[in-house]
Amino acid sequence: MSTRYNRIAGQSVERLAALSDGIFAVAMTLLVLGLRLPVAQDIHSERDLGRALAALAPQLVTYLMSFLTLGIFWVGQQTQLNHLARSDRDFAWIHLAFLFAVTITPFSTMLLASFIHYRLALLAYWCNILLLGVVLYASWGYAMRARLTKNDMPSDVPAAVCHRIMIGQALYAFGALLCFFSTYWSIGFIVAVQVNYAAAPRIPRLFRR
Amino acid sequence: MSTRYNRIAGQSVERLAALSDGIFAVAMTLLVLGLRLPVAQDIHSERDLGRALAALAPQLVTYLMSFLTLGIFWVGQQTQLNHLARSDRDFAWIHLAFLFAVTITPFSTMLLASFIHYRLALLAYWCNILLLGVVLYASWGYAMRARLTKNDMPSDVPAAVCHRIMIGQALYAFGALLCFFSTYWSIGFIVAVQVNYAAAPRIPRLFRR
Amino acid sequence: MSTRYNRIAGQSVERLAALSDGIFAVAMTLLVLGLRLPVAQDIHSERDLGRALAALAPQLVTYLMSFLTLGIFWVGQQTQLNHLARSDRDFAWIHLAFLFAVTITPFSTMLLASFIHYRLALLAYWCNILLLGVVLYASWGYAMRARLTKNDMPSDVPAAVCHRIMIGQALYAFGALLCFFSTYWSIGFIVAVQVNYAAAPRIPRLFRR
Amino acid sequence: MSTRYNRIAGQSVERLAALSDGIFAVAMTLLVLGLRLPVAQDIHSERDLGRALAALAPQLVTYLMSFLTLGIFWVGQQTQLNHLARSDRDFAWIHLAFLFAVTITPFSTMLLASFIHYRLALLAYWCNILLLGVVLYASWGYAMRARLTKNDMPSDVPAAVCHRIMIGQALYAFGALLCFFSTYWSIGFIVAVQVNYAAAPRIPRLFRR
Repeated sequence: MSTRYNRIAGQSVERLAALSDGIFAVAMTLLVLGLRLPVAQDIHSERDLGRALAALAPQLVTYLMSFLTLGIFWVGQQTQLNHLARSDRDFAWIHLAFLFAVTITPFSTMLLASFIHYRLALLAYWCNILLLGVVLYASWGYAMRARLTKNDMPSDVPAAVCHRIMIGQALYAFGALLCFFSTYWSIGFIVAVQVNYAAAPRIPRLFRR
Repeated sequence: MSTRYNRIAGQSVERLAALSDGIFAVAMTLLVLGLRLPVAQDIHSERDLGRALAALAPQLVTYLMSFLTLGIFWVGQQTQLNHLARSDRDFAWIHLAFLFAVTITPFSTMLLASFIHYRLALLAYWCNILLLGVVLYASWGYAMRARLTKNDMPSDVPAAVCHRIMIGQALYAFGALLCFFSTYWSIGFIVAVQVNYAAAPRIPRLFRR
Repeated sequence: MSTRYNRIAGQSVERLAALSDGIFAVAMTLLVLGLRLPVAQDIHSERDLGRALAALAPQLVTYLMSFLTLGIFWVGQQTQLNHLARSDRDFAWIHLAFLFAVTITPFSTMLLASFIHYRLALLAYWCNILLLGVVLYASWGYAMRARLTKNDMPSDVPAAVCHRIMIGQALYAFGALLCFFSTYWSIGFIVAVQVNYAAAPRIPRLFRR
Repeated sequence: MSTRYNRIAGQSVERLAALSDGIFAVAMTLLVLGLRLPVAQDIHSERDLGRALAALAPQLVTYLMSFLTLGIFWVGQQTQLNHLARSDRDFAWIHLAFLFAVTITPFSTMLLASFIHYRLALLAYWCNILLLGVVLYASWGYAMRARLTKNDMPSDVPAAVCHRIMIGQALYAFGALLCFFSTYWSIGFIVAVQVNYAAAPRIPRLFRR
């Protein structure tokens, strides 16, 4: 009986994509709650407000970093789902685990923004990224084993997907290690890697056309 | 006149699915607001932060439990909707009642996380799960009576859907009863059932292929 | 130039529906933030917790009322959009005004829950409902004038849509007037009308089949 | 290897639209959190409540302004995406930058509502609008260069899209400059421009039909 239910459950790639887009959208927007407004009674002049806004810079950087993190994993998940012909119940649950890691990102971001000098806050943040990467890697492996992919998928796609996740996670792990020097080095390195990931491939592409 | 309006209202399964995905996405992500950040002035060292994070463990477990609850009911609702050819106004309202129970989940989760030693908090949480199950069961019954399902639905699907909800609710009810020993037993039992539900069927499946 | 841009903007009914489903989903789920958790230091026994939860009853009723309000208008908007072949820029803006009224609903709900004895809070809530109804009515009128509807729409649909909105608004207005006796009468009357709207047509339908 | 991944990533216009609708929906609804409820212990009569609600007027105006801002950019983005045949990874990242500016809007709105007399708050708000406009302009430029548009796009669409963004940004910049007289003038001017944008083109259109 149980197997029968499991065969009919969780078959819609479209609804998995819709839930994912919703969760990413809410998580990305909730990040903004980490930016706390200046307290009104501390502000008596334009200069006070300027200083209060400048003091928000670390929160703004962690906000940007988390938005980039979520953006990168959104692109990564989308790339996988685009190559699937169908889903099944187990695949749906692997992605629910992935989405769990997405929903916890606003928390680990606010933790890091509030305790930016503490290695532990940075390592907690890194665990979050690691979890996202490990589950996304496992999801692809499962999709291959269970033959969920489309027939017309080019044969070099699987290796490219795996390779990309491994490289990314290696760089994140190196960035996390840097926290034993300084958490600022970690954050700087991770943001640099992410901005490079998001922006750099555009430059050769613009020349190519 | 009223019947005429009722016949033209609420006919889109797609929009019902879209609203549902949105509400599940927001509810799943709002759960994270139940994880309260450590208070900055209590933290003076890495060790303080470590202790403050360790103290979040009960909240993290209730968070995980609620995410699993919502994930299970999301899969369950999706399974039903996938077998529907069309919706009608009454079906839409049954699902709005279901979604009402979804939106209240972040509240009952925070209630349980804040009052984890109190049987009443656990029973309130269980009522929430019970409501989700009863409405989903009623929704399937209505869909069968009103012949909303697709013609090509395999004949064993209806029994599998009903059976699954009954088994699940029986286990939840047993878990809730355990609170008369200890609320921790209840939570542990429910999480174990849920993790088993989400993960266990994967193991035989991996062997089968 | 301006006319040219206006002709190409806002033509997608699908994206308008997607934005609407998103906004309804967020607004419906944000309502739960109006249910405030009991304060931990006031609770020393199961009985204290029971009393604190019982004291939430008025908030729970306003929460339910607003969920029903949003559900009714979601069904109403969906019914209109289902009959459209296309959208245009003006229609998109009428619906953005409608969605503005949707996003303000969590505020007017919390206002009413916090000041439940005050006529002004009830009248503010009613203005919100009135705005939703007026804009939805105007939207249908515009869609008819601009010939956005599908060709195969049955000829009695337009009158049914208008009639339904008028009846509903008349009942809401009567309910709001009752606040000059007591705001509780208003709330009770409105909830009764809404529950009847959501549930009652099901009973004859169940018998018919 | 990297190029290979970049070719397969971010190709779905539908999922980009879905994420965008989700983020716009959440951001538009989060604006309501900027409307703070009157404090219960300050309210002892209907008159007190009336005064407290009247005092919310500036927040309500900034709320409306931000809702209009987001509505305008939602229509603008939708217009672009409707003309695309496909997306690519770079285009997805340009739109993620656009969505970053959308998620920060609730923050800059609350900043402006709280510090409405301060030029700096108004200039920060304007920077937000400027960022939205610049990225949307760049996105269109990229889509043209990378030939992502549909073949059947009318030839006058590109100029209309660019022209519209330029005119809008020029008016916003003029409005921002007015803050050196008074921030109220700025807000009044911007709201007037936006209401005109949203509502005015309807009038000739209604006459035309």
